[in-house]
Amino acid sequence: MALYVQKFGGTSVGSIERIKAVAEKVKGYRDEGHDVVVVVSAMSGETNRLIALANEINDDPTPREMDMLVSTGEQVTIALLSMTLNHMGCPAISYTGSQVSIVTDSSHTKARIKKIDDDKIRNDLNLGRVVVVAGFQGADEEGNITTLGRGGSDTTGVALAAALKADECQIFTDVDGVYTTDPRVCSKAKRLETVTVEEMLELASLGSKVLQIRSVEFAGKYNVPLRVLSSFQDGPGTLIVAEEVDAMEEPLISGIAFTANEAKLTVLNAPDMPGVASRILGPVGDANIEVDMIVQNVAPDGKTTDFTFTVARGDYKKAMGVLEGVVEEMGSGEISGDNGIAKVSLVGVGMRSHAGVASKMFKVLSDEGINIRMVSTSEIKISVVIDEKFMELAVRALHTAFGLDKEED
Amino acid sequence: MALYVQKFGGTSVGSIERIKAVAEKVKGYRDEGHDVVVVVSAMSGETNRLIALANEINDDPTPREMDMLVSTGEQVTIALLSMTLNHMGCPAISYTGSQVSIVTDSSHTKARIKKIDDDKIRNDLNLGRVVVVAGFQGADEEGNITTLGRGGSDTTGVALAAALKADECQIFTDVDGVYTTDPRVCSKAKRLETVTVEEMLELASLGSKVLQIRSVEFAGKYNVPLRVLSSFQDGPGTLIVAEEVDAMEEPLISGIAFTANEAKLTVLNAPDMPGVASRILGPVGDANIEVDMIVQNVAPDGKTTDFTFTVARGDYKKAMGVLEGVVEEMGSGEISGDNGIAKVSLVGVGMRSHAGVASKMFKVLSDEGINIRMVSTSEIKISVVIDEKFMELAVRALHTAFGLDKEED
Repeated sequence: MALYVQKFGGTSVGSIERIKAVAEKVKGYRDEGHDVVVVVSAMSGETNRLIALANEINDDPTPREMDMLVSTGEQVTIALLSMTLNHMGCPAISYTGSQVSIVTDSSHTKARIKKIDDDKIRNDLNLGRVVVVAGFQGADEEGNITTLGRGGSDTTGVALAAALKADECQIFTDVDGVYTTDPRVCSKAKRLETVTVEEMLELASLGSKVLQIRSVEFAGKYNVPLRVLSSFQDGPGTLIVAEEVDAMEEPLISGIAFTANEAKLTVLNAPDMPGVASRILGPVGDANIEVDMIVQNVAPDGKTTDFTFTVARGDYKKAMGVLEGVVEEMGSGEISGDNGIAKVSLVGVGMRSHAGVASKMFKVLSDEGINIRMVSTSEIKISVVIDEKFMELAVRALHTAFGLDKEED
Repeated sequence: MALYVQKFGGTSVGSIERIKAVAEKVKGYRDEGHDVVVVVSAMSGETNRLIALANEINDDPTPREMDMLVSTGEQVTIALLSMTLNHMGCPAISYTGSQVSIVTDSSHTKARIKKIDDDKIRNDLNLGRVVVVAGFQGADEEGNITTLGRGGSDTTGVALAAALKADECQIFTDVDGVYTTDPRVCSKAKRLETVTVEEMLELASLGSKVLQIRSVEFAGKYNVPLRVLSSFQDGPGTLIVAEEVDAMEEPLISGIAFTANEAKLTVLNAPDMPGVASRILGPVGDANIEVDMIVQNVAPDGKTTDFTFTVARGDYKKAMGVLEGVVEEMGSGEISGDNGIAKVSLVGVGMRSHAGVASKMFKVLSDEGINIRMVSTSEIKISVVIDEKFMELAVRALHTAFGLDKEED
C-alpha cells in the first residue's frame, strides 16, 4: 500500500459538484488501502474575487494583510472537501498551512518553505484519515500567515510529499499528462509515459504550462516522483522522473515546445567593440523588458556586428523605443524588427549523446521551405525562430520526423 | 489616554465603503492618543454564503470543518480593515482568533473561551499599532479552529477587554444606544445614559436585541464597562454598568420590553394533585417547545386547577396537539388557547426597593381599558400578557406614567 500526496487545482474544485468528484476520486484510492494526503487550491475565481476586494481599497495593499486575505480561499476548499469526504463515510480532517506547520520565510506573497513538521499528518494517517491540507500557504516562525505566490499549491504538494517520503506526488490538472507537443496543433501528439525533470523544465518554460516550474525543480531536488494526471478522466498520466533510468531506451527528442508570443529586434552594423552588448541590453533591462534569445554575429569586415534578441510580443513597441535611444547615443547602427515570428524548440535529454539533431532539424524545416531566422541551443534543447505563419507546419513536420507521432488508433 | 476594545458587526463592515468608514472612526480614536483593539465580524451575508455552500454538500456537516469554513469570514474582514488603516497612514495589524491565542474548549460551533494570552496584543499596542482581531473564533488547546456561535463577536470583544483590562468595551451597532423602549412603537422613547447588566439582560431577553446576552453576562462577571454606540453616527451611546453607582438616583423603571411573538395555552379544570404541572409540561418539553411564562391557579373548590403557559407563536399549534394528548391521558381538563396575545414587561433594578410598581402598572392599564390576562414577576421585572391589539397603547401609556418620556425637543 502506497502513500500518495494528491494535489487538485482551482478548476478541479471550482464548484460543490466538482469537489464531490474530487472526493470520489480520493475515496477510490483510500478504498484500495492507500494513505492519501490531499492538497487543494482555492475554488477557481475565489482568489481573484478577494484580490478585487483589496484593490477597491488600494492598488498596493500591505503584503502581510494580503496573505491574511487570500489564504482564506484554500481554507474554504479544505473545509468543504473534508465535509464531503466525511459525508461519504471516508474519515477526513483539514488543516491550514499554519496548522500543519508548513514553516516559511517571512517574504509575504512569495514566501519559500523552510521546513515541514509531518508529525500531525502521520498521526492522522495512522488513525485512518484522509488529510486535507490548504495549498499555497504557510506561516513564518512568528505565526504570521504567508503565501507561496500564485500557483504555489503545486509546491505545497511536492514539499509535503518530500517531507512524508510519499511514494508519489500526483498533480491532478485539466490535461491527462504531458504531451510530445500541443495536441491542438498536432493531432498526432502523444502522451509521454515519463519525462525527466530537466525536459519538463524546458517544456514548461517554453510554453507547455502543465506544472509550476518551481514545483518541478523542487521535485527534482528532493527526488520526489511527480505524476501529472487528469482530474476529469482516469488514466496513468505522465511520470516526471529525476533521471532517465535506461538511457539506451531514451528517445532522441521528448517533445516539441513552441510559442508565437514573441518578437525579434535587431541592431545592424553596431560598432564591434567590448561592451556593445551591454550598451544595447542594459537599457532594455532597465525598462523592465525581459529578453529571451540573444544572437550576435560579427560582420565579415570585423568592424561591425549584428545584434539580435527576442522579447515578449507585448514589449515589442516599448523595446523599439528603447533601441532608438541606444542607437542615437552610440552614433551608429540601424534597427530592424519583426513581431510576426514564432519560436519552435526540440527538447530531449537524449540529444546530449547524439550529434546531428540540429542538422536534421534544419533539413526538415528546409524541406518544408521554412526559413530559419535565428538559432539558439542548450544541452537538451534546440530553438529556432521562424515566420509565425509556418509555426504549425514546422511543429507537425518535426513531430513526424523525430518519431513522436502516436500509433494510429 | 485610554485603551478601548471596539467591536463592529457584520452590517458595519458590510462593504468596502463601510469598512472605510469604520477605519475613519478607529483612526479618530487613535489620533486622540488612545490605544485601540478592534474586533470585527464577517461582512454581512458572508457567513450565510459559506453555510449555504456547506449545505449543498450535507444538511449536517462535520462541526470541526464547519468552523474551519465559517471562520474565514472574519479573516477576510480583519485583512481588509487592516489594509485600509495602513493605507490611511494608521499602522495596523490583523490576527485570527487562533493567532492571538483565544483558547477555547473543543465544542465546535459553540465553543467557550477558556483563556486569552494578551502578550502579542500588548506588544503591538506598544509599537503604536491598532490591533484588529477576528471576532467569533478561537482555537482549542490542540490548535483546531473553533467558533463561539453566531453573534459571538460581542463575546470576543468583552473577553479581550477583560484580558487587557481595557477602559471600555465599545460595541458599535446600528442603533445609537439602549432605549427605554422601541422608538418605532413609542416616539417618546429616550436613550439611556446607563443601564445595569441585570436590566440589560432582562431587556435583551425580552426582545430589545441590541447585544448578545452572553456578552452582557460576561461583561458583568468580569466587571468590563460595556458601551453600545452607533457605527453610523456620533454620540455617547449607552454605558452598561455592573452595578448602579448611586441607587438614590436610580429611576424606578429603566425600560419597557415587549413582544407580540407569543401564544398562550390553558388547561382548565385539571385535577389538582402533585405532579400535575410536570404531567402537563413534561410532554411539551419533550416536543422541544420552549415555555416562557407559567401561571397556575387553584380553583375555589380546591380540587381542580387552571394551568396556563406561553410559548413562541410558531409553536402554538404543535403545543395544542401535545396538550390534547395530555388531557386525554389525564382523563380530565379542557384546553383553551389564544395566539393573539402580547407580553409587556417593566424592567428596572429600582423596583427592588420600591413597592407599588405592580399596582401602579395595573392601574395604568386598567385606566386605558386594557384587560390583563396573565402576570409574572421577578426581582427586577414585571410582565403582563394582554391582547395583542393593545400592545402599542400599553407601551406608550406605561412609558409616560413611569416618567420615561424624553424631554420635548
